[in-house]
Amino acid sequence: MTTANRLDITLGEAIFSLRAIRRIKPDPIPDNDLHTILDAARQAPNGANRQPWHFIVLRDAEVRKRFGAIYRVAWWAKRNDEGFFKPEDIPDHYKPAMALADDIGQVPAIVLVCTTAPGSRESVIPATQNLLLSARALGIGGTITSLHPKVSDDVRELLDLPDGAEVVYCVPLGYPQGRFGPVTRKPLSEVVSVDRWGSVPEWAPPG
Amino acid sequence: MTTANRLDITLGEAIFSLRAIRRIKPDPIPDNDLHTILDAARQAPNGANRQPWHFIVLRDAEVRKRFGAIYRVAWWAKRNDEGFFKPEDIPDHYKPAMALADDIGQVPAIVLVCTTAPGSRESVIPATQNLLLSARALGIGGTITSLHPKVSDDVRELLDLPDGAEVVYCVPLGYPQGRFGPVTRKPLSEVVSVDRWGSVPEWAPPG
Repeated sequence: MTTANRLDITLGEAIFSLRAIRRIKPDPIPDNDLHTILDAARQAPNGANRQPWHFIVLRDAEVRKRFGAIYRVAWWAKRNDEGFFKPEDIPDHYKPAMALADDIGQVPAIVLVCTTAPGSRESVIPATQNLLLSARALGIGGTITSLHPKVSDDVRELLDLPDGAEVVYCVPLGYPQGRFGPVTRKPLSEVVSVDRWGSVPEWAPPG
Repeated sequence: MTTANRLDITLGEAIFSLRAIRRIKPDPIPDNDLHTILDAARQAPNGANRQPWHFIVLRDAEVRKRFGAIYRVAWWAKRNDEGFFKPEDIPDHYKPAMALADDIGQVPAIVLVCTTAPGSRESVIPATQNLLLSARALGIGGTITSLHPKVSDDVRELLDLPDGAEVVYCVPLGYPQGRFGPVTRKPLSEVVSVDRWGSVPEWAPPG
């Protein structure tokens, strides 16, 4: 069965139920599903078809444990930058992310989306969205996270990254403990204009 | 009919036939389709649900004509940076993009994907991929292009961009003169590793 055939939910269902999944069961993801997800990721548009991307999938328990420790340092470094220094400081909306930072080593697959060419970070992002949508089609959830420069050297060493390559995003993947579902967004009228900024079209109603 | 219901091709078909479309018919896009495409775009993941995006859709003929002249200057400024100065210099793989630069003013809808917050360029890119996939589901093609800093002031003035807002991508949209279809990509074995860079998994065969 081809990858295209395996991704058989509608585009609408995939897009409209792609909630960020941060609570993930430890159950492993089959090889075949990882193949499907990454095969779909690499179909994404990119400038001049240079495909300046590389996906490192962490699956080995010891590697995930070591990466998990680094991730937790990175997560707290970002919070420190924002003025939060201990769990009691963390606002409620960050609590699921804090729990993920504690537990990411138990997530069955962690995809490090890398760029292979300086100045090409943006080129790997459409592929990351394909990856998340395709995972969703297979019942697999995740979320886009980034690391903190503080851990760059540790990550390079753990992953053996070559010169020129850089981790853009860290995407934990696995089966959700909760459910997929809709997201909350601003009204279309606040984010769409026609012909010039602030000219709201009648087809973009408030709501 | 909801947006999710209108996007009724499979995710696999959308992802695997999302070829860049640069030759576009002048036929207008119905309001309802633009609504669907942008409603789907704004469902995309983004950091802390800040939704730092705004979509300006150019539809007015005079505005498109003025933008088209700016776009052509921007396209040639990028080619000048690469050492190409006249049409005879342009390599074959750039010819469709050169033709688009000449004709973009006739494309029925040009979406300027903007960021509304400094440092948030990357946050609008998953939404751009949702936009292209959703357009594809409706038979509408396009491609991601960027502008050149040389035209920044002209673009700000034409679109009346507020301080802090910036155009990230320019996406022409319309009905293809050619056909949707598959893309050419490197073998999965060249872009996927497991646990550390260069460790190719058996489920990522060459090909």
